[in-house]
Amino acid sequence: MKKTILLASIFTLGAMANSSLIKQAQDAGLQAIPSTEQAILKLVDNPKNPMSENKIELGKKLYFDPRLSKSGLISCNTCHNLALGGVDGVEAAIGHNWTANPHHLNSPTVYNSVFNTKQFWDGRSPDLEDQAQGPIQAEPEMAAPKALVTGRINSIPAYVEEFRNAYGKDVNISFEKIADTIATFERTLITFSRYDKFLLGDTKQLTSSEKEGLKLFIAKGCTSCHNGVALGGSMQVFDAGKKYKYKEVGDFKGDKNGMVKVPTLRNIEETAPYFHNGKIWTLKEAVQEMGTTQLGMKISDEDANKIVTFLKSLTGKKPNISYPVLPASTEKTAKPDVN
Amino acid sequence: MKKTILLASIFTLGAMANSSLIKQAQDAGLQAIPSTEQAILKLVDNPKNPMSENKIELGKKLYFDPRLSKSGLISCNTCHNLALGGVDGVEAAIGHNWTANPHHLNSPTVYNSVFNTKQFWDGRSPDLEDQAQGPIQAEPEMAAPKALVTGRINSIPAYVEEFRNAYGKDVNISFEKIADTIATFERTLITFSRYDKFLLGDTKQLTSSEKEGLKLFIAKGCTSCHNGVALGGSMQVFDAGKKYKYKEVGDFKGDKNGMVKVPTLRNIEETAPYFHNGKIWTLKEAVQEMGTTQLGMKISDEDANKIVTFLKSLTGKKPNISYPVLPASTEKTAKPDVN
Repeated sequence: MKKTILLASIFTLGAMANSSLIKQAQDAGLQAIPSTEQAILKLVDNPKNPMSENKIELGKKLYFDPRLSKSGLISCNTCHNLALGGVDGVEAAIGHNWTANPHHLNSPTVYNSVFNTKQFWDGRSPDLEDQAQGPIQAEPEMAAPKALVTGRINSIPAYVEEFRNAYGKDVNISFEKIADTIATFERTLITFSRYDKFLLGDTKQLTSSEKEGLKLFIAKGCTSCHNGVALGGSMQVFDAGKKYKYKEVGDFKGDKNGMVKVPTLRNIEETAPYFHNGKIWTLKEAVQEMGTTQLGMKISDEDANKIVTFLKSLTGKKPNISYPVLPASTEKTAKPDVN
Repeated sequence: MKKTILLASIFTLGAMANSSLIKQAQDAGLQAIPSTEQAILKLVDNPKNPMSENKIELGKKLYFDPRLSKSGLISCNTCHNLALGGVDGVEAAIGHNWTANPHHLNSPTVYNSVFNTKQFWDGRSPDLEDQAQGPIQAEPEMAAPKALVTGRINSIPAYVEEFRNAYGKDVNISFEKIADTIATFERTLITFSRYDKFLLGDTKQLTSSEKEGLKLFIAKGCTSCHNGVALGGSMQVFDAGKKYKYKEVGDFKGDKNGMVKVPTLRNIEETAPYFHNGKIWTLKEAVQEMGTTQLGMKISDEDANKIVTFLKSLTGKKPNISYPVLPASTEKTAKPDVN
């Protein structure tokens, strides 16, 4: 009897600790991905570019289609590989003609990018629709002028048909429409994790070590930047030029106010190397570097390890994606140009 | 009544013509992909590397994994893109450091490559298991030494686990085993088409124009090289140096006897540009070029168009492939080297 009471009170204490931790996390600005389809849709849909099944499926094809690049060899998925946590795994993105990003910028993950308040490391795009237009045209990335892209898509009748199904029969397949469609697909790339289930009240989803890590993550102030649904995604001060360990790499200075987009921490164990310049390869080192440069504190090995244990609980389930069969080019399709 | 008899006799004549065309096709060496799973398995399995579900699934992951390349950016699927008819759509393959194939050789399709009697344009590999070892190591392709590849795979516990599930717990994950596993997946990449249904007796599957094209295809002698299940895949004389229209491109001379692997014609409408050097972009021109250089005849525009109509019936249904989620690299995984 005594034992039962003891167990019961331990259980009660445990439950209290859990609900208190959830409360702490919420107070610190952490938010779960909702569990219902309707709530998710509300969060990810763009009223100016509303989602539909036809658009998502077409957007997936375009996302995987390397013919959106000048060479015909680079697709969105090349640098934001959905098989590899939505990234390419190299320090600085490699694009057309094997050109590295001139600012030594690392490809951020496309998974959960819908939750970012701005897109690109310097936050120059307000949304995914705008963002998707950038890399397609950028010379060191896909290097394709707008007219080349729209010309190729319009030369493939099966694509034209799919655009009609998605937007109506009078659709003008513009470059912007192509980017909109890709963005629609990207808005579906969210990864629900055990961490979300925990925040939504299923407290057994995190182990006690992970909970300890979460407590530290909040206590150390990591949540001052890594908050919201994305655990990141907003623009924050990050003095890359002055303090940062690998400041010598590249000339990136953030936006005009020195603000830099905080990367999401979801699936972070899958998206090394880290930071805008991809110069740090281990999570522990990344945590400690952020302690020094952003929070002005030394995070001990022990605490860093605990935080890393928590971070790994952010790895979520990826959506099932059937690899598309793309419509064949025709004799009217502009040829690839690898030069 | 008269009309009914007339229709009946037309129908009978039609049926006779159909069965005669099937017989002609068979006599010319054309073979269907069988319609039963068991018969297909018998045709595609390699007794030295027997297929299993675990091996196929693991092989799919490896096929899509760019970490098999030195840079971490090029996978088997980069040049043999399953979304694009199993090819890259450029004249000469582009590999590590944006290097073009030094012999200006075009990437052949991986779909139905299991039906080739030899692999590579010069037939230097007896099977897919051997073939898969080539491009991974080749400097202008994936540029990864064996030890780098085995080191990376062995550094990822989830891969090690999958190899154990596929081959038994004492498996030694050698470079050869990695290639074997990829080959197992490639053996599943076959595309059943209307043409196969026709050859198997469902004569309504081809239109009368397609049948006319098939008749011409046989009558002109195309089947002397393009026969078997692959409509190609064997080694035949092809004097690239002497007669071929684009002989100035590259230094490819075939094998030591001047023999060259005949490409499969399955899905040919999806795999432009054509020939070992990728210099011809339209099927009609390809048919006429083969008439001149291989068959010693001028094929008229009309006849070439008819043959092309038939060739398009060879486009088959691609297997459904769910895009894999690859296991994350670890701190022990050798970093990508883009140089």
